[in-house]
Amino acid sequence: MMPEAEARLIAAFRKLPAVGLKTAERYAYAVLKMSRDEAESIAVAITEAKDKIKTCPLCGDYTESDVCERCMTADKSVICVVGEPKDIHAIEKLGTYNGMYHALNGLLDFRKGIGAENIRIKELLARLDGVKEVILATNPDIGGEMTANYIAGLIKPMGIKVTRLAHGIPMGSEIEYADEMTLGKALSDRKEM
Amino acid sequence: MMPEAEARLIAAFRKLPAVGLKTAERYAYAVLKMSRDEAESIAVAITEAKDKIKTCPLCGDYTESDVCERCMTADKSVICVVGEPKDIHAIEKLGTYNGMYHALNGLLDFRKGIGAENIRIKELLARLDGVKEVILATNPDIGGEMTANYIAGLIKPMGIKVTRLAHGIPMGSEIEYADEMTLGKALSDRKEM
Repeated sequence: MMPEAEARLIAAFRKLPAVGLKTAERYAYAVLKMSRDEAESIAVAITEAKDKIKTCPLCGDYTESDVCERCMTADKSVICVVGEPKDIHAIEKLGTYNGMYHALNGLLDFRKGIGAENIRIKELLARLDGVKEVILATNPDIGGEMTANYIAGLIKPMGIKVTRLAHGIPMGSEIEYADEMTLGKALSDRKEM
Repeated sequence: MMPEAEARLIAAFRKLPAVGLKTAERYAYAVLKMSRDEAESIAVAITEAKDKIKTCPLCGDYTESDVCERCMTADKSVICVVGEPKDIHAIEKLGTYNGMYHALNGLLDFRKGIGAENIRIKELLARLDGVKEVILATNPDIGGEMTANYIAGLIKPMGIKVTRLAHGIPMGSEIEYADEMTLGKALSDRKEM
């Protein structure tokens, strides 16, 4: 006996990542209790984002311009390769990197039929003019490692330095709780003090 | 350097309950990766819900009709009083109650200046014709207990039976972990087997 529009609102919220029925119901109730204006502002933000935001043809990040501002002002001698635009924002927040970025917008996954031609590797190779270092910052999981190795294999023969983000024990964590792969990596990659 | 429309989308999602920056960012990225149609369907569900759903003048639940279907078909001899419409849905899911509901759409809170005239108590008193039992199903917290006691004080003198949902140890939980108030209540309200 729930109003159909309420059921549709709950179903809509379930399209967001990791939102189950309970959370979707909670969001729906909140929207029903909100003022018309406040609810409308959420709806408008969603449609506006889809209308205004496009992908930068160079780095693959989201932008409202034709080419994003960062691509125009960045240090052109270094490029940091990530899986998704959200990874760019994570590194940007550090405030210590001034080079270019390149979002692959995907990772190699042969089981799912995602090959080199399905992610932005060709676009990366077209941006290497004048680049002295390629930092591979894909996630340290199977897809990220495989993609990083694949790209390194293409770029190293071009005489460009290729680096990978360090893996190891997270800062502030405890060795006791590190998983075996991480601890093994931290040991083999140990640094002289 | 994040697009403004993206920042506005993140801010919009933070209006939902218990959504912090990380979660709002996650939802925003998901919307940006969705098809235009799928994102639009979320926006439409929000505006449609606000356009179509109103409050039933009798029970206070959300409805698309003038009077909700449940109010028309319910057993009129018993009425279950809850704080919010979402509590109605929780009890409805049991599938064992056929009576009327009454959402107060708020609870007494004198510190916040919410008195009897600010919640739907007058509307409840107007619905008691033919009612033989009033079940007080407000939450077992300070506001819910105070509101239940206040309403019981109004209705018991009218010769109508007033009941309260049982409090006690939750099913499937362990006595060891029950808080003192709950355990105390469970002991004093113990039932003969």
